[in-house]
Amino acid sequence: MHTKPAVRPNCLPAHVAAEAIRCGRLTSLDLTLSCLERIEAREASVGAWCYLDRDQTIAQAREADKRQRAGGDLGVLHGLPIGIKDVFDTSDMPSEYGSPSLRGRRPTSDADAVARLRAAGAIIMGKTVTSEFGMYAHSSCRNPHDERRSPGVSSAGSAAAVADEMVPLALGTQHTASTLLPASFCGAFGFKPSFAFTSMRGSNILVPRLATVGFLTRNLDDLALFASVFAQGFKAPVEPLAPQRLGVVRGPAWDKVDADARTAFDVWLKTLPTAVVEIELPGEFASAIEVTHGLLAAHLAHRFVPMPEATQATYCAPLRTAIATGLRFRATDYLEMDAQADRLTEAARGLFASCDALITLSTLGEATLLCDGPGSGELTMPWSLAGLPTLSLPLLRGDRGLPIGVQLIGAPVDDRRLLSIAAWLTGSVCPPGPEAKQT
Amino acid sequence: MHTKPAVRPNCLPAHVAAEAIRCGRLTSLDLTLSCLERIEAREASVGAWCYLDRDQTIAQAREADKRQRAGGDLGVLHGLPIGIKDVFDTSDMPSEYGSPSLRGRRPTSDADAVARLRAAGAIIMGKTVTSEFGMYAHSSCRNPHDERRSPGVSSAGSAAAVADEMVPLALGTQHTASTLLPASFCGAFGFKPSFAFTSMRGSNILVPRLATVGFLTRNLDDLALFASVFAQGFKAPVEPLAPQRLGVVRGPAWDKVDADARTAFDVWLKTLPTAVVEIELPGEFASAIEVTHGLLAAHLAHRFVPMPEATQATYCAPLRTAIATGLRFRATDYLEMDAQADRLTEAARGLFASCDALITLSTLGEATLLCDGPGSGELTMPWSLAGLPTLSLPLLRGDRGLPIGVQLIGAPVDDRRLLSIAAWLTGSVCPPGPEAKQT
Repeated sequence: MHTKPAVRPNCLPAHVAAEAIRCGRLTSLDLTLSCLERIEAREASVGAWCYLDRDQTIAQAREADKRQRAGGDLGVLHGLPIGIKDVFDTSDMPSEYGSPSLRGRRPTSDADAVARLRAAGAIIMGKTVTSEFGMYAHSSCRNPHDERRSPGVSSAGSAAAVADEMVPLALGTQHTASTLLPASFCGAFGFKPSFAFTSMRGSNILVPRLATVGFLTRNLDDLALFASVFAQGFKAPVEPLAPQRLGVVRGPAWDKVDADARTAFDVWLKTLPTAVVEIELPGEFASAIEVTHGLLAAHLAHRFVPMPEATQATYCAPLRTAIATGLRFRATDYLEMDAQADRLTEAARGLFASCDALITLSTLGEATLLCDGPGSGELTMPWSLAGLPTLSLPLLRGDRGLPIGVQLIGAPVDDRRLLSIAAWLTGSVCPPGPEAKQT
Repeated sequence: MHTKPAVRPNCLPAHVAAEAIRCGRLTSLDLTLSCLERIEAREASVGAWCYLDRDQTIAQAREADKRQRAGGDLGVLHGLPIGIKDVFDTSDMPSEYGSPSLRGRRPTSDADAVARLRAAGAIIMGKTVTSEFGMYAHSSCRNPHDERRSPGVSSAGSAAAVADEMVPLALGTQHTASTLLPASFCGAFGFKPSFAFTSMRGSNILVPRLATVGFLTRNLDDLALFASVFAQGFKAPVEPLAPQRLGVVRGPAWDKVDADARTAFDVWLKTLPTAVVEIELPGEFASAIEVTHGLLAAHLAHRFVPMPEATQATYCAPLRTAIATGLRFRATDYLEMDAQADRLTEAARGLFASCDALITLSTLGEATLLCDGPGSGELTMPWSLAGLPTLSLPLLRGDRGLPIGVQLIGAPVDDRRLLSIAAWLTGSVCPPGPEAKQT
């Protein structure tokens, strides 16, 4: 793909912009100004940012351009503006984890993931909105496709900012659904790599066995570029790989899936030019959602009960409920949930004996109306619990023409192969436009 | 070292016997028969074995010799008899975890560690005695130096069998002290490698974050040979490495150390021809013993409470007490103990910024009289909790002339370097004989 003069820089894919900057056809400053302009035009409607200092951002971009002119080493994200979900510590910006209780908190050092991004040359554009401590609660962010609708939780601001072309890349996290849910609702590409893909130090870790980074972009190649900052062997463009067999899974909450999403998914499955088999999930999956909520509740209780009661009283309702639930668990209850998670992880691994990747939906349907809650993560929970790499690909649309993500689940720690299968999947089929689904 | 005709094969170091077999100077059958003879002479006094079938062992040895004559590939333990602590599953022998409740249990497959040893050519001599499920409880094994005394827990049979020259190698495990405590009491070399050194599948895992294999031998080079079955880079003889600085640590239970052990340790420290500094343990160590017992209790309660009450009633008192304690913990109590273990692990790593290895005692003193209990693991607990590699070296003797182990603690996952420092330590100083300590 080549830069056409007609394309405004903020609309460029990250890997294209990176190449343009490297070749001198674009400056980081021009790209950054273009992003800032988009944000200024749209932020009042979308509300994706909780911290953004125009001067601070511009200074970083000027510094990047200066470094390039001086012939310095350029990282893979050199000059690219990036949004950081506000659950990561940043040494030069507030880090409030979406909580009024942490208003004005200024950590003294960067989270490991942020430090890596800076070292790769990224321009830290600002902090993106998250629901409080990543709970299933509303934030100030709205869906860029429809202000009355949820952008999803909890990496809402990161997904909305990327989907709305405010930045080409944004960092998120996922414990249960926090990257794939907003990716699906906002129509972004979301990638939750394998558990332990990179250090989570300096971030809001709710449950150690679930905490993972998440990447949000507008195309698959940018996910590979993003991931290349943290692990070897990722390259944009991604080389497509035709899977021998794809397994379709319909998780424990499949009965809650919207009728239009179900239809769109089934129609799409028929277009796939490869063997597609329905996989029955093993019994270990039956308790996946309950176990996920239980582990969260226990860890939230442990973390937040030592806080002053007056502080706890300010927490969002889902957090207060989870704390109360967590306090009721015995140690043996916790260990049983943890053991069930181990058994599910083992069972999930077994599914890849017969197929190269699994497919399902990322969400129950299109973005929910705000009055109907922030959205459900039940379709991604089992796979996060199993620690598997997962993607949300914006390939479907619902009856209202809003995006719905296809969730692609990869074999254990085979993240690169997952991206390659996704490249084949997105290259070999034509995502239906909104009009195709108006029937 | 060369094989002298006067030395009976069962007394040979494992690496010497291995070499003699490989060169055709010794057969596996002769070595095995020699070990069997020693066992027949001593077993009534020591009680190290809970399962041993003479014919089955001899058949394995004959098979090994036949394989060698046929010119087959020979593993690093080719033809060497080895004792297996009866907390590991064996496909061809009972595996009762020292518990009457599992009498006659016959698993259908080998534990991963056992499979590795078989693949390396070892002769699985039989199963060695353990206290019930590895608890701090008496077993039928006695200290080979003094029948009235404890051999330590829980790898008692493995340590006693090795120390008494019944086998050159024996496999143990350690959660808190189970390899180093019996090594110290019996005068064996004990090595608890780093956490996650090798798979524990098919063994009695009490607490996942603590479960580690343990190696018991009569010299340091044999520990390296043993470890080479499971990881790369270990070689017998071990190349000595002079440490720049050794740190002396006196753990949270140091006030319980016997006066003679304390004296022997301090006298020995003065003989070390390297910089030795006293290290004050960080505050995180204060709760190490309580946290270890707490984690054990919680996991034991989770594991054993589903068992029928009639079965639970047969368990040894320490197990029943631990279950009752574990049932009283809340999930948040468990998570706090787990978090304290994390903080201790982090703090322990920090100690290696200023020294190459840490030294302390392995036990509070010489082997306890049976009427005084099976022995305490308080000096090894913090280091097991921290997941660090540790050794017990039989370098000291107490006032009764019985062995006391020096505990050497290595930097994270630097197991090979730990053995090299130990080689320097054991080579550079002359372990005092019993008479030297009769003052």
